[in-house]
Amino acid sequence: MAITNRQWLLKERPVGLVGPEHFELVESPLPKVDLEAGQVLVKTLMLGFDPAMRGWLMDERSYLPPVAIGAPMRASGVGQVVESSNPALPKGALVQGLLNWQEFSVADPAAPIPPRPLPAGVTPSLALGIFGSTSLTAYFGLLDVGQPRSGETVLVSGAAGATGSVVAQIARLKGCRVVGIAGGAEKCQWLLDSCKLDAVIDYKSEDLSARIGELCPHGVDVFFDNVGGNTLESAISHMADFGRIVMCGAIAGYNDATPAPGPNNLTILITRRIRMQGFIVIDYLNRAEEAYTALAEWVAAGEIAWRDDVQEGFENIPATLQRLYSGRNTGKQLLKLADAE
Amino acid sequence: MAITNRQWLLKERPVGLVGPEHFELVESPLPKVDLEAGQVLVKTLMLGFDPAMRGWLMDERSYLPPVAIGAPMRASGVGQVVESSNPALPKGALVQGLLNWQEFSVADPAAPIPPRPLPAGVTPSLALGIFGSTSLTAYFGLLDVGQPRSGETVLVSGAAGATGSVVAQIARLKGCRVVGIAGGAEKCQWLLDSCKLDAVIDYKSEDLSARIGELCPHGVDVFFDNVGGNTLESAISHMADFGRIVMCGAIAGYNDATPAPGPNNLTILITRRIRMQGFIVIDYLNRAEEAYTALAEWVAAGEIAWRDDVQEGFENIPATLQRLYSGRNTGKQLLKLADAE
Repeated sequence: MAITNRQWLLKERPVGLVGPEHFELVESPLPKVDLEAGQVLVKTLMLGFDPAMRGWLMDERSYLPPVAIGAPMRASGVGQVVESSNPALPKGALVQGLLNWQEFSVADPAAPIPPRPLPAGVTPSLALGIFGSTSLTAYFGLLDVGQPRSGETVLVSGAAGATGSVVAQIARLKGCRVVGIAGGAEKCQWLLDSCKLDAVIDYKSEDLSARIGELCPHGVDVFFDNVGGNTLESAISHMADFGRIVMCGAIAGYNDATPAPGPNNLTILITRRIRMQGFIVIDYLNRAEEAYTALAEWVAAGEIAWRDDVQEGFENIPATLQRLYSGRNTGKQLLKLADAE
Repeated sequence: MAITNRQWLLKERPVGLVGPEHFELVESPLPKVDLEAGQVLVKTLMLGFDPAMRGWLMDERSYLPPVAIGAPMRASGVGQVVESSNPALPKGALVQGLLNWQEFSVADPAAPIPPRPLPAGVTPSLALGIFGSTSLTAYFGLLDVGQPRSGETVLVSGAAGATGSVVAQIARLKGCRVVGIAGGAEKCQWLLDSCKLDAVIDYKSEDLSARIGELCPHGVDVFFDNVGGNTLESAISHMADFGRIVMCGAIAGYNDATPAPGPNNLTILITRRIRMQGFIVIDYLNRAEEAYTALAEWVAAGEIAWRDDVQEGFENIPATLQRLYSGRNTGKQLLKLADAE
């Protein structure tokens, strides 16, 4: 059986906006793989996209090593086992893990982030969407880092995104007053109608700082930031005493060719005793079950809304990543490559 | 007995560097004061100066209300009770509190920060210096906010200042490796010889970021920042994973007419899971005894060094405040008005 494997390899590190020109599509026959004990050969069915992937392209010290020039782009995905040396992941099983931008990959349970089987009834889009890493990020970032208390005001940037929309809804479920920031009327309406936020700000058409002040008259107790830049600066101005800023992402600056200046009002962190703290979801993977359990209950009870933006086609992978940085995605950005057999 | 009271009143809010021109020296006969029960009339003996006083001049929401135009400038000091309606603070007693820039003041135990008697043997300069609010700031900021562990690397900016030098020495006493940042060879030598730091950086003559990297090869676990601005940006670049940044002050920007841009590398807080947290010593006053006890033991054992920069003369008060912002002070900035009787 001659199988062709297609891969998108990193061709050069982007300076500025990442796009298809930074990757190279290569096709090669899939060699016969001698699987070591525990390994499985996986056919990629669906890929997930996340703004943080831009950081993996930088040649900088970070929480994961940079993707090497000439290597397939790192990405989480769901695939189906087509050959197995692992009794726990038999042929036909659906697995989730770092499958990368390629049609086939060898997944190793000894990897730092090992492949894991999908629970029964969980589809690829559920696994990468509402039960994906963005939801774990939302859960642990909000609850562990932000530590919201019932009755507090929680402000969320990137609120219509996969992480932000789950943050906002968990905050609501925990009894907080929730204000979301998103770009465009459609996203804002979805946040009000489906996610049931208390208020939203359309940063594209409203004066962000003034509106935060109006909608959070007693200040912001928890700001969950996915955006950075001017959004962060505006939020800092309206923090309540002893507030917490959860630094999850900074998509506003990910594609800057040169780093933009930071907020000019950081002394507010002193006078108002603010804690501003960054985190990475990888540090919480050993507690993932806690989040899955809570999310499954909320999903079953219809208390949490989400939506997936599913693109298709291997050739569209790099362009799909770019969608995130223009805010074109509506909900979790996914790309489907194949159906399960 | 006709007594004249001299006061320095706030004339206008400074834009840029604060100086004598922003205050007005007024003399007026001290009226006969009808002390309410608990109040005392206090003659100021010595005043303390702190960079944070610049913030009290701004018409902005902060942890204390702004000093009003026409009011005496707020300042901590030590004075002697000259009239008393308080058995716990009899005539002749030395008291410490917010005495302001004036020769006489009525101190009220019901004030938010009430006057307190000096312990036996504690001189005015000891009370305002090594046992003053800057040392409480150092103690709680480092230990409570920074949470250093033995063996970790602690970096301190403004390390030759009243707060920074105590921070650096407490860190040393807790088993940390301590690197100080100060301006000028004399201050750096004092930090090495008297405060026994492991290393120092003279930011006036050395490449700050490069030197932090050389002296902290495994990264900075705790950065105690009194300076802000470029110093903060440089330190962020060299933080270790899970490091803590204690935001105590930002003297670099206190006298900026317009706020300077912030650090351009805040995304490092995310990728390295940094906690950056501001605090105000006022929140810890109910635990002051804990700090005094520890400081007294270290002082008695000769394990902690300090120095006071004592100016003199009521007319020199505003110029003495300005010394802090040019780094001319060597150690805790004080000004002596009178001896105890």
